[in-house]
Amino acid sequence: MTNEELFAKTTINSWKLAIDRLDQAFSSLSDGELQAEVAPGRNRVFYLLGHLTAVHDRLFPLLGFGERLHPELDEDFLTNPDRKSPDRVSAADLRHAWSEVNQKLMAAFVALPAGDWLKKHDAVSEEDFAKEPLRNRLTVLQSRTIHAGFHGGQIILAVKRG
Amino acid sequence: MTNEELFAKTTINSWKLAIDRLDQAFSSLSDGELQAEVAPGRNRVFYLLGHLTAVHDRLFPLLGFGERLHPELDEDFLTNPDRKSPDRVSAADLRHAWSEVNQKLMAAFVALPAGDWLKKHDAVSEEDFAKEPLRNRLTVLQSRTIHAGFHGGQIILAVKRG
Repeated sequence: MTNEELFAKTTINSWKLAIDRLDQAFSSLSDGELQAEVAPGRNRVFYLLGHLTAVHDRLFPLLGFGERLHPELDEDFLTNPDRKSPDRVSAADLRHAWSEVNQKLMAAFVALPAGDWLKKHDAVSEEDFAKEPLRNRLTVLQSRTIHAGFHGGQIILAVKRG
Repeated sequence: MTNEELFAKTTINSWKLAIDRLDQAFSSLSDGELQAEVAPGRNRVFYLLGHLTAVHDRLFPLLGFGERLHPELDEDFLTNPDRKSPDRVSAADLRHAWSEVNQKLMAAFVALPAGDWLKKHDAVSEEDFAKEPLRNRLTVLQSRTIHAGFHGGQIILAVKRG
């Protein structure tokens, strides 16, 4: 394995660890318990499950992997805050979308040639990327990994209470 | 810049983003507000500030950068849970240690030759590392970055409430 490949593989593995921990947290909660708030008056775990699914789903076009699987989640879980309107997606459907998105993302991550992680992502222009080479796909992956950890830290507050 | 260097630089930049966000959160809280719990009955922000400082301080020996700066923090902020005993460190001293540790870590990160991130860390044996090459320094850095995000997600609950 080349050093470049080891860098990519290590980073993908770190993502996987963050996702595995979230999987574990979501699995430990019943559909009813997903309705718990992470702290009084704050987001429900249900909202964060949808939010993380939508954010991860957006990685498909952003990283050049193709079309999104669940753009219908954006309005409820990205554009709007929690409880803006009554839930329109069931917990079962949300859990399914979460698993589906992460499984297909992982397959795409593993298939990407290591050097391609250093190429620009879809939301930066060629001109800007020439000036700022860190606006690459690797930055996006690492940023979403931290984001997964960020909400994971909140979700665990509801898990331990439950 | 080689691809290897770009991989290392991107990863260090992701760490920096996570630290910058924590800096911002801690700075936005007064010493009194650091006493707030992130959720009812959970860790105080004060404890998490000490906890993150101690965990980051342990990176010096773990990554081969030398001696720790603040081993005295372990008992209160790593070994024991929050409020096991009365606070022995002032908020000012804790804030200072947090900044000092992260500044010196960043200097060490930037000085490390890119390929060295793929070398083993101090807590894995040569034999185990030969079998599991992902137990490298890069994994440690990424794991601590996620950890910083994890507690950052909790701390923000106290910031927004404050």
